[in-house]
Amino acid sequence: MSSLAGSAATPADVHAIEEIMRRGGPALRERMARAEAHLERVTAQAGVPLASHATATVVAGGKRLRPLLVMVAAEAAGPVDDREREQALIRAAVAVELVHSATLVHDDLIDGASLRRGRPTVAAVAGRATAVATGDLLFSCAFAELARNGDAEQLQALSDASSALARGELLQREDAYAADIAVERYLERCRLKTAALFEASCRLGALVAAGGDLELAGSLGEFAGQIGLAFQLLDDVLDVSGPAQRTGKARGTDLLDGTVTLPLILARAHDERIAQVDLASLHSPDSAERLCELIAATGTLEQARARALSIVAEAKESLPAALGEGRHELLALVADAVVERYC
Amino acid sequence: MSSLAGSAATPADVHAIEEIMRRGGPALRERMARAEAHLERVTAQAGVPLASHATATVVAGGKRLRPLLVMVAAEAAGPVDDREREQALIRAAVAVELVHSATLVHDDLIDGASLRRGRPTVAAVAGRATAVATGDLLFSCAFAELARNGDAEQLQALSDASSALARGELLQREDAYAADIAVERYLERCRLKTAALFEASCRLGALVAAGGDLELAGSLGEFAGQIGLAFQLLDDVLDVSGPAQRTGKARGTDLLDGTVTLPLILARAHDERIAQVDLASLHSPDSAERLCELIAATGTLEQARARALSIVAEAKESLPAALGEGRHELLALVADAVVERYC
Repeated sequence: MSSLAGSAATPADVHAIEEIMRRGGPALRERMARAEAHLERVTAQAGVPLASHATATVVAGGKRLRPLLVMVAAEAAGPVDDREREQALIRAAVAVELVHSATLVHDDLIDGASLRRGRPTVAAVAGRATAVATGDLLFSCAFAELARNGDAEQLQALSDASSALARGELLQREDAYAADIAVERYLERCRLKTAALFEASCRLGALVAAGGDLELAGSLGEFAGQIGLAFQLLDDVLDVSGPAQRTGKARGTDLLDGTVTLPLILARAHDERIAQVDLASLHSPDSAERLCELIAATGTLEQARARALSIVAEAKESLPAALGEGRHELLALVADAVVERYC
Repeated sequence: MSSLAGSAATPADVHAIEEIMRRGGPALRERMARAEAHLERVTAQAGVPLASHATATVVAGGKRLRPLLVMVAAEAAGPVDDREREQALIRAAVAVELVHSATLVHDDLIDGASLRRGRPTVAAVAGRATAVATGDLLFSCAFAELARNGDAEQLQALSDASSALARGELLQREDAYAADIAVERYLERCRLKTAALFEASCRLGALVAAGGDLELAGSLGEFAGQIGLAFQLLDDVLDVSGPAQRTGKARGTDLLDGTVTLPLILARAHDERIAQVDLASLHSPDSAERLCELIAATGTLEQARARALSIVAEAKESLPAALGEGRHELLALVADAVVERYC
């Protein structure tokens, strides 16, 4: 679908992000670099030697998609034209990435994962207790950092998202291995687990830049929420479609953990054999892979992918016209970056 | 030491708190009741069925010492004389208790505890994943609740405390089973794990009541931090002194978990046999009990207790005279409540 797509060695989404950085100009690049440095400083200064686990996890990287959303939304919402506002923007970007990192540390603990971003997870290196406390510390640092902006509206946005993440995790636990999950309930879980923090990222950027234009912050937040929802849908397609050499994990890893995702939900309605599979009976990567094959054969991967694409298209169309041409374009590019990885 | 002391069946601290409620008058009692109801509402409304674990943990009670500190500090700092300020106060009280509850859920997970406040812990009932997410949800709800007050200074106080709690937990993990812990390092851990949230409770109360008198908030916060430090010291004495029928847990439970506390640190300097005990070699409640006997025989329990009492006395003396007689008295009573349980 795009010249950026399909590169297995370097994920296409990283290329797309580089494209955004290029088009965003020197100001965006410099801000992202400052956010990166600040992120490292905040976690390193957290105050105890064992915070090195927190530092390692955060500094090991990731795409920094959420900080980028903060920056791009701020640019779209209005000028970030003084030093104070720029510092506030960097703090907001750091705060969303800290919340995201906290979630990763706790998710890895829950999933028993041993690797993350190519490094051993905190849970694997330092055990359960340290992983719990490290995640808590990252959450707390996120709020401490954002509190320095002195704007309760921003803190409300972040705490809403952080509550949503935890509720999404609880919902996922509750629905694990379930034989009958409605599409709407699955979408609600995606909104909680993924879309909420995307939404908060854009809301925060808009709040910082426009100095509290709630309407614009709301519109940009809604846009980002849709993008986040599509991101999760496509991630769930990828779990079933593979290939493993592209995703870096075996096909059906989520299914093996009991997570009921859209491809499975749709496939259950198409194929009685799939409907009768009890996820709790999957005990090996091989059996998960066979289920993935069955699902792929129903054509529901294409349905799920199409659904994600249409959500993204709608999100792009719903962007407020008042933003102006160049800003519109940059946000649309972010939406494309989310999609391109998967197509 | 007091007529409230020594009642084994009903903990003396609960009696002392009732005394504070009596002297605090109907306004204090009504506010505490409203905080209790609001706490239940917030956790129940968290949004997913599994939040029932969060609800059960929080609603099962506890002494509500931290919400009480919020209320008493507010009363001391100035009038809480309109409906809006009163609602803000209740939100602050709920927020600190939510952070405390989050910590308990995560601590129980880390310690593998099966009972808390006489009920099965979230980890025991619903497993590790749900316990991690429930704690995260409680943390998030705390910040969401406090953000509704619209005061970034308050959020800074809570996030500082919440960071401190996590750093204290990390420090405890790092120092577990250590042969040589300095007193100052132990005190630092107590400040992080316990004193910081006591301090935040008083700061929050003062900030709400006085509408942002930072100096007074600081003084009351410092007072509460000292009380919290003494609270932790006395708790650590109790772990060694028992008796089990009073504390509800076997003597030396902390030592068995590898936690090096003040009585052990002091006793190591008194008795070479104790200095040579490797906590990692304690494998049974009996061996922990024997170590407790050795420690008790050195007289260092009295030293540790005396240190806590002198911290409380200093804290009471350092209360700003400007508070006025009645308010001074109520805060001093809170300080006594912390001490009386243990004497």
